[in-house]
Amino acid sequence: MSLSMRNQMSGTVLAVTTGEVMATVKVRLEGGQEVTAAVTREAVGELGIEQGSAVRALIKSTEVALATGAVAGLSIRNQLPGTVSAVTTGGAMAGVKVAVAGGELTAAITKDAVEDLGLAPGSEVTALIKSTEIALAAG
Amino acid sequence: MSLSMRNQMSGTVLAVTTGEVMATVKVRLEGGQEVTAAVTREAVGELGIEQGSAVRALIKSTEVALATGAVAGLSIRNQLPGTVSAVTTGGAMAGVKVAVAGGELTAAITKDAVEDLGLAPGSEVTALIKSTEIALAAG
Amino acid sequence: MSLSMRNQMSGTVLAVTTGEVMATVKVRLEGGQEVTAAVTREAVGELGIEQGSAVRALIKSTEVALATGAVAGLSIRNQLPGTVSAVTTGGAMAGVKVAVAGGELTAAITKDAVEDLGLAPGSEVTALIKSTEIALAAG
Repeated sequence: MSLSMRNQMSGTVLAVTTGEVMATVKVRLEGGQEVTAAVTREAVGELGIEQGSAVRALIKSTEVALATGAVAGLSIRNQLPGTVSAVTTGGAMAGVKVAVAGGELTAAITKDAVEDLGLAPGSEVTALIKSTEIALAAG
Repeated sequence: MSLSMRNQMSGTVLAVTTGEVMATVKVRLEGGQEVTAAVTREAVGELGIEQGSAVRALIKSTEVALATGAVAGLSIRNQLPGTVSAVTTGGAMAGVKVAVAGGELTAAITKDAVEDLGLAPGSEVTALIKSTEIALAAG
Repeated sequence: MSLSMRNQMSGTVLAVTTGEVMATVKVRLEGGQEVTAAVTREAVGELGIEQGSAVRALIKSTEVALATGAVAGLSIRNQLPGTVSAVTTGGAMAGVKVAVAGGELTAAITKDAVEDLGLAPGSEVTALIKSTEIALAAG
């Protein structure tokens, strides 16, 4: 099975916190970063996700935002520093590739944002991903 | 590979429209509904998605909204009518199962929304999914 | 029509930028803020969205992030300042109500984020919403 989701990063589950409906899963990626995924409790049960499980974090490009400056006091749990490696611009949207520890991310953001932030190859950025936007694959 | 994404529906690609960065892929699901996924152009190329391709539409529960009553004039491309089969309520969020033609969807919405809409087993609803929230799996 | 989407704000379209597949729509909300929605070009055509159109911006709670500090150089187009009016905490997630000019927003974020940011009624925050997460209703 191949997935359209551009962002797939392997890691190991550090902790699972379970609510009635949702669960948050902390994952240490191979690149050393920690990310949190908010998925349904049901999914955690069916996939048998627990501390130590090998998983892949899956993220659609449209769910990745970028910041160029420091970001303080942000609810977004997942902040991966990296360097822009390529920018492709369309009529309304732009695709930005970001090299991060252990891999590469693709962000689909507006063309306006690319221009306002002056993003180009070499730009230092932080990729921001809301926990609810990360899915997990097991096995 | 097992995926945490609760919503996985098989179908056949009807059409692909390609831009510089993004592409929209129209898919006829096995249940007969048509859905549109907005994914990166790169993903379409790498997965070899074209008219006639067998794909699965993948949607995180947190990306599914629900409407009661008719929905007119909405930018959200994907509107799947169904009937609520179960509601699980937590402290902040709720999980709602919706039986649709050809399968079942799970929506993770706020507890407040469940209460305001009076959702319960048997409620007629329309599941709403923005095109940018649908990922595709091929093969 | 009742929608599960907690966040619905009326406004007027200021401009539409159209790509091959996607389009960005700038909207001035009744509260005076400007927001940008990235929707499919097809949706813009079918809904007849153009400069001057009356629309409602629709946003799922799970798509709203919150920041307490200054946010510089961020690709996220939509940043609405407000004040926390209520926090509801579940096992894994939390719902945060934010009073903004012209209305109220609900953000579904992780419980961890609420604790780390020390969010409570009265907290000054900025609601952050990626353009791809805003849907539009016309009429």
